[in-house]
Amino acid sequence: MPSEFDIIRHYFTCKESRADVILGIGDDAAILKVPEQHELVQSVDTLVAGVHFPLETSPQDIAYKALAVNLSDMAAMGAEPAWFTLAISLPDADDAWLKAFSESLSKLAKEYNVQLVGGDTTNGPLTISITINGFVATGKALTRHKAKVGDKVYVSGTLGDAALALVQWDGQCLLQKESIAYLKERLNRPTARIELGLLLRDYASSCIDISDGLLADLGHITERSSVGARINFADIPRSEEFNLNLTDEALITPLILSGGDDYELCFTIPLNKQNEFEAIIKDKNISVSCIGEIEETSGVRCIQDDKVIDIEEIGYQHFND
Amino acid sequence: MPSEFDIIRHYFTCKESRADVILGIGDDAAILKVPEQHELVQSVDTLVAGVHFPLETSPQDIAYKALAVNLSDMAAMGAEPAWFTLAISLPDADDAWLKAFSESLSKLAKEYNVQLVGGDTTNGPLTISITINGFVATGKALTRHKAKVGDKVYVSGTLGDAALALVQWDGQCLLQKESIAYLKERLNRPTARIELGLLLRDYASSCIDISDGLLADLGHITERSSVGARINFADIPRSEEFNLNLTDEALITPLILSGGDDYELCFTIPLNKQNEFEAIIKDKNISVSCIGEIEETSGVRCIQDDKVIDIEEIGYQHFND
Repeated sequence: MPSEFDIIRHYFTCKESRADVILGIGDDAAILKVPEQHELVQSVDTLVAGVHFPLETSPQDIAYKALAVNLSDMAAMGAEPAWFTLAISLPDADDAWLKAFSESLSKLAKEYNVQLVGGDTTNGPLTISITINGFVATGKALTRHKAKVGDKVYVSGTLGDAALALVQWDGQCLLQKESIAYLKERLNRPTARIELGLLLRDYASSCIDISDGLLADLGHITERSSVGARINFADIPRSEEFNLNLTDEALITPLILSGGDDYELCFTIPLNKQNEFEAIIKDKNISVSCIGEIEETSGVRCIQDDKVIDIEEIGYQHFND
Repeated sequence: MPSEFDIIRHYFTCKESRADVILGIGDDAAILKVPEQHELVQSVDTLVAGVHFPLETSPQDIAYKALAVNLSDMAAMGAEPAWFTLAISLPDADDAWLKAFSESLSKLAKEYNVQLVGGDTTNGPLTISITINGFVATGKALTRHKAKVGDKVYVSGTLGDAALALVQWDGQCLLQKESIAYLKERLNRPTARIELGLLLRDYASSCIDISDGLLADLGHITERSSVGARINFADIPRSEEFNLNLTDEALITPLILSGGDDYELCFTIPLNKQNEFEAIIKDKNISVSCIGEIEETSGVRCIQDDKVIDIEEIGYQHFND
């Protein structure tokens, strides 16, 4: 295979350059400028073929998802994404694959105005590890540990779509033909909710992105904030396509509550900010739903038909870590 | 295996915390503070078992090397290292292995005052990818592209030790028993030349760390600086242990010129700063050697016995990418 140096230079050198990238790829390290009065926000996420996405996934979709899940971490922190490094292990240097992968990666990077500033390619089973960087005005980042009793719990978009696409991929259910494209897009090309994250800095007391499922991720907020939460199953937003294809309650419940990979935001809004938040969200036409509230009693309870759903019984597990 | 969350929490949560880590591991991202009037320096390096280190390497040595090679990139930039993220793929969650790995990693991190601020563990063949962050006063970073004709070429420490240890590992030569420990240490536990890198900010016109071999890495400097270099083989520093074990010129030349993994610094010093630089280096007892100078003619020429060594004939290639 071509040397590492050639691969990086050939496929991953970007023409566009952000003004805050003093020195990009091609030296021992990149030199970057964080704006004054701002903090750096940094996170790493790895995707392994066959673990985090099906082996048949296209290089375009793999690149998209690898960057999107990292952008989603920036959204969850209320950070403005800026730069990323890429460590990629490749079983071989397939020209067509690399071209498709790098074009898709750079298209999404351009869309979000983020720049690749460092790369390392190695030989091995397909693994993509991205460290993303963003920044946020000092003290304004969203975290998981400041939810307070009485805060309202929200989620963005709709839940369960990505999990439903996976179930179909496994051949566990048949989907209506006209829904397949939408649901696969939701699985392979999650939308990082950057605009919402930036807006939430002025309203939310806590925030997380839903990668492991609503219960698990809201559970991270309640645990870190030393509180609990009660959510109403009927209020959890589902897409038309989800409802069109699934009527079996036994399948719906685990997909909605424990299906990962939607990369929507779950966040809490203090009661005294709720009206202003709802007004601005409506004004900006961003889709969010209030699904419950923070309580004192630890743990997350989901209510359906006036009863608490027995979470032990759900047990949906797929490509979640 | 335990979930990702458990592994990170159990093995990689650090007790020590740098004051500039506003929020460490445990949220969607870390929040970090780059000092004002400073630039962020960032780099990623990946080690794959069987590619970048022999499969039999101990978890302690793997952890040491994975962090050290990244610290070395900071040294090459003249940056003060600060934080790192770790993406690790593990074939299984072997408790003893993870304990040994994480203890060695955190010991070295403490030694260099760097803090782990983000982690992702996945299941797969052993691969360690670290993104390291450091900072440097604005405009003071060392780069590869500013070497000028007439500048003197230097290297730190001694070259060829790591390559010799690899040759021995492969059973291609026998080493004196008393040298083995030293040479293996040079291969498995390279020293990041941070102190030298920081000092070079006031003297060097260019700098790189030697990971792919002297000729290749000095070649990166000359290529990026649009110059060439002439070095004297006899001036390239070798360790006593190296000289003690190798007398065959046919083996010595490729190991010295093309053996990687030493992670010494190669840098250029303008003539008008040479005296002051030599004095301060002597004062601080740092080992460096002047091995040649920058010329107009492109490419790197190595002179031995008044003749230019034919580089095409060398062809040493091992664990270099």
